Formats: sequence, structure tokens, C-alpha cells
Amino acid sequence: MKLFNAPALLAAFACLAMGPLANANPKSVILIIGDGFDDQHVTMGRNYLSGQSGTLILDTMPFRGAVQVETVDAAGSAIYVADSANTATTLATGAVTIIGRVGKDRDDERVQTVLEAAAAVGYKTGIVSTASVTDATPAAFAAHVGVRACENPVSIRGGKKYGVTFEGCPRDLVENGGAGSIAEQLANANVDLILGGGMEHFAARFENNPSALDMTTEAGATVLTRKDQLDDRYVGRVVGLFAEDTMPVKWQGSNGRSAEDIERSWLNLAHEMIGSITQPDTIACVDNPSFEAIPPLETMTRFAIDHLSRDNEKGFFLTIESASIDKQSHVRDPCGSIGEIEQLERALSVVNDYAARNPDTLVIVTADHAQAAQIVPDPTLYTGLPIPVFSPGKVARVETPEGSLMRINYATNNIRSEEHTGANVPLFANEQGNAVLTPFMRQREIYQAMMQYLEL
Amino acid sequence: MKLFNAPALLAAFACLAMGPLANANPKSVILIIGDGFDDQHVTMGRNYLSGQSGTLILDTMPFRGAVQVETVDAAGSAIYVADSANTATTLATGAVTIIGRVGKDRDDERVQTVLEAAAAVGYKTGIVSTASVTDATPAAFAAHVGVRACENPVSIRGGKKYGVTFEGCPRDLVENGGAGSIAEQLANANVDLILGGGMEHFAARFENNPSALDMTTEAGATVLTRKDQLDDRYVGRVVGLFAEDTMPVKWQGSNGRSAEDIERSWLNLAHEMIGSITQPDTIACVDNPSFEAIPPLETMTRFAIDHLSRDNEKGFFLTIESASIDKQSHVRDPCGSIGEIEQLERALSVVNDYAARNPDTLVIVTADHAQAAQIVPDPTLYTGLPIPVFSPGKVARVETPEGSLMRINYATNNIRSEEHTGANVPLFANEQGNAVLTPFMRQREIYQAMMQYLEL
Repeated sequence: MKLFNAPALLAAFACLAMGPLANANPKSVILIIGDGFDDQHVTMGRNYLSGQSGTLILDTMPFRGAVQVETVDAAGSAIYVADSANTATTLATGAVTIIGRVGKDRDDERVQTVLEAAAAVGYKTGIVSTASVTDATPAAFAAHVGVRACENPVSIRGGKKYGVTFEGCPRDLVENGGAGSIAEQLANANVDLILGGGMEHFAARFENNPSALDMTTEAGATVLTRKDQLDDRYVGRVVGLFAEDTMPVKWQGSNGRSAEDIERSWLNLAHEMIGSITQPDTIACVDNPSFEAIPPLETMTRFAIDHLSRDNEKGFFLTIESASIDKQSHVRDPCGSIGEIEQLERALSVVNDYAARNPDTLVIVTADHAQAAQIVPDPTLYTGLPIPVFSPGKVARVETPEGSLMRINYATNNIRSEEHTGANVPLFANEQGNAVLTPFMRQREIYQAMMQYLEL
Repeated sequence: MKLFNAPALLAAFACLAMGPLANANPKSVILIIGDGFDDQHVTMGRNYLSGQSGTLILDTMPFRGAVQVETVDAAGSAIYVADSANTATTLATGAVTIIGRVGKDRDDERVQTVLEAAAAVGYKTGIVSTASVTDATPAAFAAHVGVRACENPVSIRGGKKYGVTFEGCPRDLVENGGAGSIAEQLANANVDLILGGGMEHFAARFENNPSALDMTTEAGATVLTRKDQLDDRYVGRVVGLFAEDTMPVKWQGSNGRSAEDIERSWLNLAHEMIGSITQPDTIACVDNPSFEAIPPLETMTRFAIDHLSRDNEKGFFLTIESASIDKQSHVRDPCGSIGEIEQLERALSVVNDYAARNPDTLVIVTADHAQAAQIVPDPTLYTGLPIPVFSPGKVARVETPEGSLMRINYATNNIRSEEHTGANVPLFANEQGNAVLTPFMRQREIYQAMMQYLEL
């Protein structure tokens, strides 16, 4: 429902929003997740956006720590590298689970999320992502399926995702007593605001059943699909779907280039100690034209905070994901990742402004897992060696605004997509973090800290 | 000089150590450097030594942050990946300098170190390393040469290091008015204690000139060469050299194995989308027999603290390096690196015990730069793909004590040695850190913080 900006109407809605849960000092939590945003990526962002000696907004956060990522296999044994589904589930629910799980433990049982717990006692809640809102990270805060690919009423029956055949989620099918696909669950979820991509999942229809989009409208939510619609205010539930799947990223490599193989002479291919190699040309980061049409993360963040805080005396829980730091690292496009770090920085700036005016707001920024990209020397540290020295993987040589070359190595996989990696991830927070966070935490303890802060 | 443990003699020496500099509340700084000890390595150490859900001693430190590494080229432009020479110089002196420099700025000019500044006003000082004490990291605190390879009176005239020909350090030659090689400088340096490897550099002799060992003895320092000599106490300067160059590491891979190539079938070599691959066998971490003869880092640390704190009312500056976290990562031996992390942990335990009894002790642990090793999934995240998926680099599959497999990828170089990487590095400190450290720092600011703490 669109809200006309008339003071009288505003006052009326304000009355509606107030009630027994009203709190003189409302507490809110804003959890920003940089997907794959490990220390290599943080430094890539710093070097490019602020210069080697510069400072990100992140770097000014008064609290900083590290978070151990935990993953288990079906038997409960330690797995040292995670995916975004199991880590988002841990952040959202405190459960340590298996790869691919969304909002469910390793026994495929539903676990309540911090968002659901907050909503249940009257906090407003919101999910913002640059991915499809049905993607693992945003989904894990308000949906529960056995396998992350069960995003819509069709894919829940099995199919292919990332080239991999999967069986779907039979236990989650509505006809089997389950809650349905992620899109179906989000359509009816007790979440005040959902913004991101994913229209194709909401529009997907199995046989003649209603789509998740039908259900969303049926449930009375306002569905937004255009960037300019975020200029207005609305009351009631809002679901904004601004792309078919993942939203286009802000930046890309010049001429669409990403990391490439070193070009090796025939002699070098015969034996790598001889012959010569040619480095890939340098890459400039340029605007991605497709980004123009969609709302930046900053805009979605500003809208979300306004929507959740307006006429709300209880506070809110909001999670915001910059998703394609990871996705662009998978496809070896450092400019793609850096542009999404820039989006995260701008969103953080909006969040920090709000928190400065509303001191009982806990702001946390963290990553879900580490990623493949590595900053490596250009030239090599072994320039004096009389033989060709090169990475066995793919490299991108990014021109930075301060006039240097930042070389990024992607060398975990032979296939089109890089692997995640297993390093602990960074943790940033505002002053409120001191009350509930410690310098070293496990991901499940972030969940506990948010619950504690919201007195849940 | 060996100190007989007679109370009367002790008292006499105590009187000698006291004077106008005596301070009722002596302040000390202990800086522990894990060479190459980035977040991937910290997590490798945690997963192996404590389990995925475990806690390192490091993880219990009350202060944690991140440190941006800065490096420049000769023109002063940003370089995004460092070496141990320029970073140790930055930590020791606050100067941001070029790769290879030890205790000198990018114009090849000597810069005073925190150790030298501390010694000049009466603090005792010490350097402990598992590398040769002439290696870049320890050397940068008390020596000044243009190129790190100028470790002894022979190599200062040029030669080869790591297979690379270098020209030596003509400006640093004594006959040219310089201070000589690193070993020669350390022989006469105002440092109360130097422990590590490096006998070959101290014994090296150019023509008929005295060796650095001759100079050390001549200067009145006690030279130790055997582990059991650390059971005793000494007065005056002590130089302990327990290995020819780098000290043997604590652990190694079973059967001497480190990371290996994936074995690819002939069909897969013809085209990587077909055929099959065979994973390397798993590796267990086992004791390195050569380690038995040398003093562990823990023992050197305990000796150093006793030597520097005994009969000292002024306090001390001590730097301790676990050097081979990096060196073993260069040669792709994760067990080697993990054993040196274990050594760092034991040394930290000794340091923390001392700091608990002497609260005006600032304990800092950090790394000099990031390194190549990455924890990657085993099996791949793409198990469902119908094609062989593998790293283009080398991998080691380490059996962890908790019964899981930790797969480490080394894929930055085709040659025998991996590259460093450019991520910001971790920073840990005890409670005293809160007075002078911030959650995000540049490496030069660590120098400033130590200077501030010691009121220099």
C-alpha cells in the first residue's frame, strides 16, 4: 500500500503501529553480510577505493574481530570450508549445519531464526540483498528448506543449479506437509520488508498452482519492481523484486574482461623453465551499464531503514547482503567484487548515519565465508630468477585509482567457478558491539549476540 | 658470562643494573611476529591444534584488529604485496620502504628502530627468531642494509639468494664507510640478547678479516650454540646461534610429503573436461627429527624474558619471530607451517604468563604479510558436476586430530616457492593494547604505538 505523505495520514498510521509493545528506547539490529568478504577482499576494496594507505568506512568502525566459520557433514564431523547456505543458517539461527541447508539443521529440521524470533515479539523485520531474495543468504533468515536450490515451486522438485543436478526438497513440498519452496515461504513470511532480485523465482509456477508472486499479493503485501518506486513510502509488507535473479553488479572489468591465463610461448609449454610468458593486459574497472536500471544497495538500505523505523517504537531487525562480492569472485572478476564492496560501503554509511541518530542500534558487518581471490605481487617477488614465473591459475591486473597495479590471483579450480576458502572472516561493529561481541567469536555466537541485544 | 646462581652475586649484579634510569613501574613491550601468519594460517592452526570449534591462545587475547601492510617502489608508488624485509622495517622503524630493505628507507638511508630507541634510554633489548638472526625480520630491528641478502661479510659483496643473483650492498661495506653486513652489525649492536639460527653468517669470513663471530666474542658477548646452555643464566650480552641458517622446524608431513599436483589421467591431460583425476593421499603431521637438537621457540622465549627482566628496573623491548610459518608456506608444507604456529602459541603462553605477573607489559602479536596457503574444500563444492574438478596448483590433504581432512591449496607460482599475498594481517594484544592500539592500523602505526607505550 502506497503511503501518501500527508501528516494526518502519517499520524494515523503511527497510532496503528503503537501498542503494548511500544518501548521508549527501541533496540534495533542491522546485520550487514558481505558474501565472501574475507580479508583479501577487504584489502582489495581498501586498496582500490581508498588507496593502500587509505581508510574504508569499515576501517573506522570502533569494534573489530574475527569469526570462525563452522560447518559439519551429515555425521556431525568438522568440514573446513563452508557455503553461503550453511553459514547464513548459522548466523540466522545459531545452528551449525551441512552445506546447502537453509534455515534447517543437519537433520533437516527447521530452526527458528533471529528474524522470526524478533518478529514474534513485535520487532519489525527486513531482508535486503543484491542477490535473488531466494538465494541462500537472505533466505536463511526467513525460510527453511533442505537444499538451497529449492528456490521456487518448480526447482523444489529438482533440476540443475550451477550445472549440478539436484534432487529437490521432497520433505519441503507443500503436498508432503512441508512449507514449500523458498519463494513460497517468503511470500507468506512475517517479514515487513524484502528487497532484492528474484522475480523469476516468485513468478515460477508449478502446473496451475499459484506462484509465490500471486501469494505475496494475496497476502496483502505491496510488490515493487521499479527503482523509482523506492522514492515513495508504503505501509504494510513490502516485497521489492528488481531483477529476475541476482541483481546486476555496479562495476565490471574494461571490455568485459576478468582474470585470464598467462600466455605461454610454445617453448614454455614444452617446458616451463624455458621460453617466455606474456602477462595479461591491465584491466580498468568501469561502470556496468545494466546497473543503471536497478536500485543501488544504498537506496534499498535507505528505504529499508525508513520503512522499518517509521512509526515504530519497538525497533527492528534488518539484514543487508552485498551478495556479489562472492559471486564475482567465483567468476574471477575483481572489478565486479570491488564494485560490490563499494556498494557495501555506501550502505554502511547510511546505516551508520541512522545508528548515530538512534544509539540503541547494533550495527554488525561480517562475511559468511572466505573466497578464492588473492592479491599477489606484480611483478613476482622472484623477478631475479632467469626462468618464467607465473601463477598456474588465472590473474587479473587491475589499475587502481592511485596509479598502481593490483594483481588478483584465482587458482582454486579448473572449472568456471572458483571454490570458497576456509579462513576466519572479519567482524566489524559500532560501539554497541562492545556489549555483546568479543574479539574472537564463532558464527553461531553472532546469532546469540543479536538475540541477547534484542532481549530475545 | 655465565652467572652462578649465588644470591650474593645476584645482588651485586642487581646493584649494577640499577641507577638513575630505575623505574618503580617498568614498562616492557614484547612483539611477537608470525611470519606470513595471515588469517588463512591462523585458521589452519586453529583447525589443527584446537579443532574447528576450538580456541587458540591467540583467540583469548582481549584485543584484536587488522593491520594494513604498506610497501612502495623506488618512486614511492603503492605496491600491494610486501616481503619480510620491508614489512619488518616498517614495524621496527615506522618507515614505509621498498622490498628487500632492512632498517633503511627507500632512499637507502638508515632509520632508527624502536629497539635502538629503547636501548638508547636504558631499556634492555632482545631479538629471538627461529630464522637466522640475520634474516630480514629479526635483522630489521637492529641492522641497516640496502638489500636483505647482505647477511654476512661475503654475501654483502653480492651473490645468489633464493636462486636470484643480487649485487650486494656496496654502500654498506665497511670500506665504503658503511656499517657492514647484517651479521657484523649484530655483532656490535646494542642488543642484550640475540637468539636464533645463523651460525654460517656469523662464521663467514671475507679474506682474512675477522668474522662476525670473532667480533661478537671480541665485544664481550657470551656466544651460545647448544640448547642445554639455555638452562643457565648469564650476565651481559648473549648471542645464541643454534643452527647454521634457519632453525629446523618442529613438524613435517608424513614421509616428508608436502603439497602435490593432482594426478590426471591421460584422457584428462588431453582435455580437462574428460578422463579422471586422482587426489593425493592424505598427510599426517609428524615430528621433524632434526628439531630435537635445537631449542624450541618456547625455551628461547623463556630464556629471553628471564635474561631481560632479571635485575632490570627499566623494562625491556623484545621481539620474537616464528619465522617458518612463512618459509614452510613458500615450500608448500602445511604441517611445517602448523608446527611453527604451535611454537608461536607456546611462546605466547610464556609471554602471557610473564605479562600477567608484570602488568605494565604490552604484548602484541601480528604478522608481517599474508601468504599463499588457502584452506579449500575437500571434496570440492562442485561434487555434483560430471567433470573432473581440481586446483591448478598443488594441494595437501592434512589429517586433523579431530578426524577430518583439511585441504590446503598452494597455487600462486609455478616455481619451487610460492608468492606472498596482500591481505591485511591480524593484530592481537593483551589489555595493555587498548591504550595505544586501534582496531584498524597501518604497520607503521604499530611502531608508533610501541614507541608511545615505552614513552620514547
